[in-house]
Amino acid sequence: MIKESEIILKKLFPICRSITGNGVRQMLSILKKEVTDFDIKEIPSGTVCYDWVVPDEWNISDAYIADSSGKKIIDYKKNNLHIVNYSVPVNQTMKFDELKKHLYFLPDMPNAIPYRTSYYKRTWGFCLSYNQLKEMDKKAKYHVFIDSALRPASLTYGEKIIKGTSGKEFLFSTYCCHPSLANDNLSGQVLWSFLLRQLKAKKLRHSYRFVILPETIGAIAYLSKNETKMKKISGGYVITSVAGPGKYGYKYTYLGNHLIDKAVENTFKDLKIKYIPYPFDILGSDERHYSSPFFRIPIGTICKDKYYEYDCYHTSLDNLDFISAKNLIKTLDIYSKVIDRLEMDLTFKSLCPYCEPNLGKRGLYPEIGGSIKQKAADFKKKHHDRKYQISQKENIKGNKLDIIRWLLFYSDGKTSLFDIYHKTGFQIEQLYEVAEELRRHNLLALV
Amino acid sequence: MIKESEIILKKLFPICRSITGNGVRQMLSILKKEVTDFDIKEIPSGTVCYDWVVPDEWNISDAYIADSSGKKIIDYKKNNLHIVNYSVPVNQTMKFDELKKHLYFLPDMPNAIPYRTSYYKRTWGFCLSYNQLKEMDKKAKYHVFIDSALRPASLTYGEKIIKGTSGKEFLFSTYCCHPSLANDNLSGQVLWSFLLRQLKAKKLRHSYRFVILPETIGAIAYLSKNETKMKKISGGYVITSVAGPGKYGYKYTYLGNHLIDKAVENTFKDLKIKYIPYPFDILGSDERHYSSPFFRIPIGTICKDKYYEYDCYHTSLDNLDFISAKNLIKTLDIYSKVIDRLEMDLTFKSLCPYCEPNLGKRGLYPEIGGSIKQKAADFKKKHHDRKYQISQKENIKGNKLDIIRWLLFYSDGKTSLFDIYHKTGFQIEQLYEVAEELRRHNLLALV
Amino acid sequence: MIKESEIILKKLFPICRSITGNGVRQMLSILKKEVTDFDIKEIPSGTVCYDWVVPDEWNISDAYIADSSGKKIIDYKKNNLHIVNYSVPVNQTMKFDELKKHLYFLPDMPNAIPYRTSYYKRTWGFCLSYNQLKEMDKKAKYHVFIDSALRPASLTYGEKIIKGTSGKEFLFSTYCCHPSLANDNLSGQVLWSFLLRQLKAKKLRHSYRFVILPETIGAIAYLSKNETKMKKISGGYVITSVAGPGKYGYKYTYLGNHLIDKAVENTFKDLKIKYIPYPFDILGSDERHYSSPFFRIPIGTICKDKYYEYDCYHTSLDNLDFISAKNLIKTLDIYSKVIDRLEMDLTFKSLCPYCEPNLGKRGLYPEIGGSIKQKAADFKKKHHDRKYQISQKENIKGNKLDIIRWLLFYSDGKTSLFDIYHKTGFQIEQLYEVAEELRRHNLLALV
Repeated sequence: MIKESEIILKKLFPICRSITGNGVRQMLSILKKEVTDFDIKEIPSGTVCYDWVVPDEWNISDAYIADSSGKKIIDYKKNNLHIVNYSVPVNQTMKFDELKKHLYFLPDMPNAIPYRTSYYKRTWGFCLSYNQLKEMDKKAKYHVFIDSALRPASLTYGEKIIKGTSGKEFLFSTYCCHPSLANDNLSGQVLWSFLLRQLKAKKLRHSYRFVILPETIGAIAYLSKNETKMKKISGGYVITSVAGPGKYGYKYTYLGNHLIDKAVENTFKDLKIKYIPYPFDILGSDERHYSSPFFRIPIGTICKDKYYEYDCYHTSLDNLDFISAKNLIKTLDIYSKVIDRLEMDLTFKSLCPYCEPNLGKRGLYPEIGGSIKQKAADFKKKHHDRKYQISQKENIKGNKLDIIRWLLFYSDGKTSLFDIYHKTGFQIEQLYEVAEELRRHNLLALV
Repeated sequence: MIKESEIILKKLFPICRSITGNGVRQMLSILKKEVTDFDIKEIPSGTVCYDWVVPDEWNISDAYIADSSGKKIIDYKKNNLHIVNYSVPVNQTMKFDELKKHLYFLPDMPNAIPYRTSYYKRTWGFCLSYNQLKEMDKKAKYHVFIDSALRPASLTYGEKIIKGTSGKEFLFSTYCCHPSLANDNLSGQVLWSFLLRQLKAKKLRHSYRFVILPETIGAIAYLSKNETKMKKISGGYVITSVAGPGKYGYKYTYLGNHLIDKAVENTFKDLKIKYIPYPFDILGSDERHYSSPFFRIPIGTICKDKYYEYDCYHTSLDNLDFISAKNLIKTLDIYSKVIDRLEMDLTFKSLCPYCEPNLGKRGLYPEIGGSIKQKAADFKKKHHDRKYQISQKENIKGNKLDIIRWLLFYSDGKTSLFDIYHKTGFQIEQLYEVAEELRRHNLLALV
Repeated sequence: MIKESEIILKKLFPICRSITGNGVRQMLSILKKEVTDFDIKEIPSGTVCYDWVVPDEWNISDAYIADSSGKKIIDYKKNNLHIVNYSVPVNQTMKFDELKKHLYFLPDMPNAIPYRTSYYKRTWGFCLSYNQLKEMDKKAKYHVFIDSALRPASLTYGEKIIKGTSGKEFLFSTYCCHPSLANDNLSGQVLWSFLLRQLKAKKLRHSYRFVILPETIGAIAYLSKNETKMKKISGGYVITSVAGPGKYGYKYTYLGNHLIDKAVENTFKDLKIKYIPYPFDILGSDERHYSSPFFRIPIGTICKDKYYEYDCYHTSLDNLDFISAKNLIKTLDIYSKVIDRLEMDLTFKSLCPYCEPNLGKRGLYPEIGGSIKQKAADFKKKHHDRKYQISQKENIKGNKLDIIRWLLFYSDGKTSLFDIYHKTGFQIEQLYEVAEELRRHNLLALV
């Protein structure tokens, strides 16, 4: 899967993916054809979505700055970051001073081309490295050429819903805009498609809604078109920046302690991976819209090198040398385990709530009694704090008889397995497995 | 009372008390006759109690293992722990290898005979010390003799309800099974009877339900027969392991901060006794049933050498040398003070809630005003934290005028004296006494 | 204003202000005439107020102790603290031993005359310094003369209500009793009148009820006469002891975390003033009545040298040398800023709650996108704890775009600006200003 992911990353990287246009369509078609099937849909330009309007579609075929000798010193065809996204067509010769108002560069990162956009203000611009800027003749005239088109057409996005039986639905969203930037967010797009393919092959209790859309306007348009359905979503994740060389990070939901968060914390704990916890922030990605007052969907984000945090963020240095397919597959595995946990957070009701059931007659209790000894006490002392407040650091492999008893004790139809995990510290998988066994014994029922 | 308790302990210790049978009847009769009156009741074998069935009654008159010379090398008459409880009759000669499957011993405690039971699986067994085992000839044959009887009859328990007037009822439960083991639980049985006798002599506000029954099946059968009444119980204690030489311990209720817990914490604080706090654990005694999802009665347990925690637990070394009557009476005194606190946790409503009442005209305020000085402030600073969160370490003897004012301030019909204790740190007895005085002045009414 | 306040302090200091009588009337008239207008009202003696009765009015024209030579050794006209408030008339010659039962002094503060009262017990007494006492001849006879009158008349108080539009009302109460004592409470009386004048000049959203009344009986009588209105008060402050040389202190409301408290904490934080936090205490002033079970109005008190805490409290050393007009005006400024905060704690509802609104089309967002960088993350890390629990120590001047987004995110019609302050740490003024701007853009509505 690492090899496969490497091939896809290389194929998609050069495509100029903006918030609309043929680049997005091309990228989605490749993912659909080469990874897994999903629906590709279009929303017409001019569609009103709450406070916003879907903008005209932007396409670009060429753009450059040439010097007086006709030599292209900045060439869109060499790196699509050179053009400010949504630049209008230009074909004009101008002095450096005039041109400079349209140039974007980073003096403190002299080799990097920054990434800039102007979706809602009709203008044009070029991004270049500071070294390239220094080489330009400040007295000369330059020929500026942009062969772009801004016309009413549509915004393109992808969607696939995997139906479960529980009535609960989770969202996995990623953004398909951003041109040749690898970690943010080509990595997210590829992981999204791999995760979708994996889930299709599983038998799932819950439903999972996968969307891949342009950031901000795409999410807003999607929410607007799917208002009732989105209002019912239990929670979800925005997939972005998942394949960098640095640390794992997790951006919490706006609630900070939702199942969405607990499933991630528990997965990292189980894998013994340290991660940087990022509190919810209004800056970020589409969680801002999914969690807005009307929808309030709790959204988390697992990153490997979180956007904003790594030096080459939003520059040409966020390229295929920065990320790796291996890292991408590692993060995929984490997301996959997180989903296992979402599937495991069930709530049961004891079918024998009056006293402890007779475990012996079901073969769940040793026949010779009396031998529970100091071991029992030691065991308890280790993983119970005073007044049974368990330290959240534990993820204990417990004694089965113990787990049976705690499950029967807490299963009142309101306390979920994650709640019981937080009260006892026993591993969620173990709680899940023992609970399923008790269900087969008709001692627990799912609520 | 120490002397009296010593006599009873010695008389009861040798009796073979299992979950049913004549040993239990004999022990209950002695307590009833020599300590205090209560009802002795029987539940027929075969009675269905939720998920359980009352088992046949077990009685035993003799049991031994004899060597080929006829010498009894293991003899039930020397120590009733030698026989696995509920062993079926046997009269058979067999090789050591065959016999060994039925032997229980503790290699790491070579002098101790362990305590074992087999209530629900028809089998037999002997418990012996590891030293005894080592002396046996592994090549020899042995004569095994058990003269026991398992026949439908009944399960025996004791019960006494002391009626109060408040409508609130508390439970004091102990278990009468376990043969010659002193701390667990002969000590609990004796304390239970002494406490019952004490309470009968007092004028009590609340009702107290005292039950003495075989562990597990006894509690389950009792809950099943008294479902509606038990559902109304406010809380209670399981009395066990109360006379060891070691530290006091308190096993919290499953709620961890119920009045049942507060009354114990406060008593220990008042007596300046350090104790080991044990969080609620599903392992333990009948609290597991009393606190099960349907009943959810909060149950605490005060121990001196808690079961599981002391080395000789469930062995022949838990004998009359291990415990002392003096320790038993000390713990009795603690339980008695705990009950005082249950009686004192009243809730009042101010009859003059509009402003502070005129204390002067009732002789509750000094006639010459103006002299409250720095002392007042110093006093306050000492026993109030910021924002009046009192440290739970305090148990202050306060100024009476202060206590009057706080009582009148907080008595809104919802805030109990224990709540006021937690807000102000004043001793519960003092709050109680001053509240009763304010009641006589018609400034407070009981709710 | 310092100069003005100095003049008023000097004019009012010598007046004998008890809980009733012409001294109070005189003082209120001067404040009304020289500072700001308010209503002066009377409640007849004998009026029943809950558990109390308005006492007879007390007036005094002269009082002294003269030695056998006729020399006045203790003279009310030199310091009105010499007379126990509410002393009955006396004209008698007596031995020192007899007289001594009526003398009050402080052995550990030999220069200070204490302040004493006897409102509800008909008696008489003199207060004198311990040095004065020592000079008296213990064998001699003394002539005691008190020309006082206790007759049914009335209790006098001042009141002014400033009407706002929000329907919310806050209380500012001070007590006008206490004779020649400067910090407690002449300083409070003068601050009260200055604050009232200031508020009248402002455009206010809320209503403010200002009362100046004798402590205890005045507050009780006022509550009794205004029961329904007082039950609707949102909170308030008792103004006392505001001009000493020592530290600021704040006595919390009985709730401890009410808006009344938050507004004070925030003001002190903003002014970078350290203060001593005093938890709510039943000892104190009229908060005892305002917060009594029926009314439960949360009342705070800002002090500069809190009553009880400074050495010369309730003695003749609490005089104009102890306090300063400058300190008084400083505390006035704090109260004024606290009121600003009460006015700023608004709750808004987003008018575009579905997603983030299009800020760009309203000129609230930079036109060229993509440049939010590491700075954003650094900024956040600094002022957000894990899971967005902000440390209450912060009072951050934030980035406007950030504030816009957080306001729109949290404004769900239930979360007030103070709540948002506690979640984000941004300055309340800044939140208020940006919220008002968003209201002008029709993005927020006041609820």
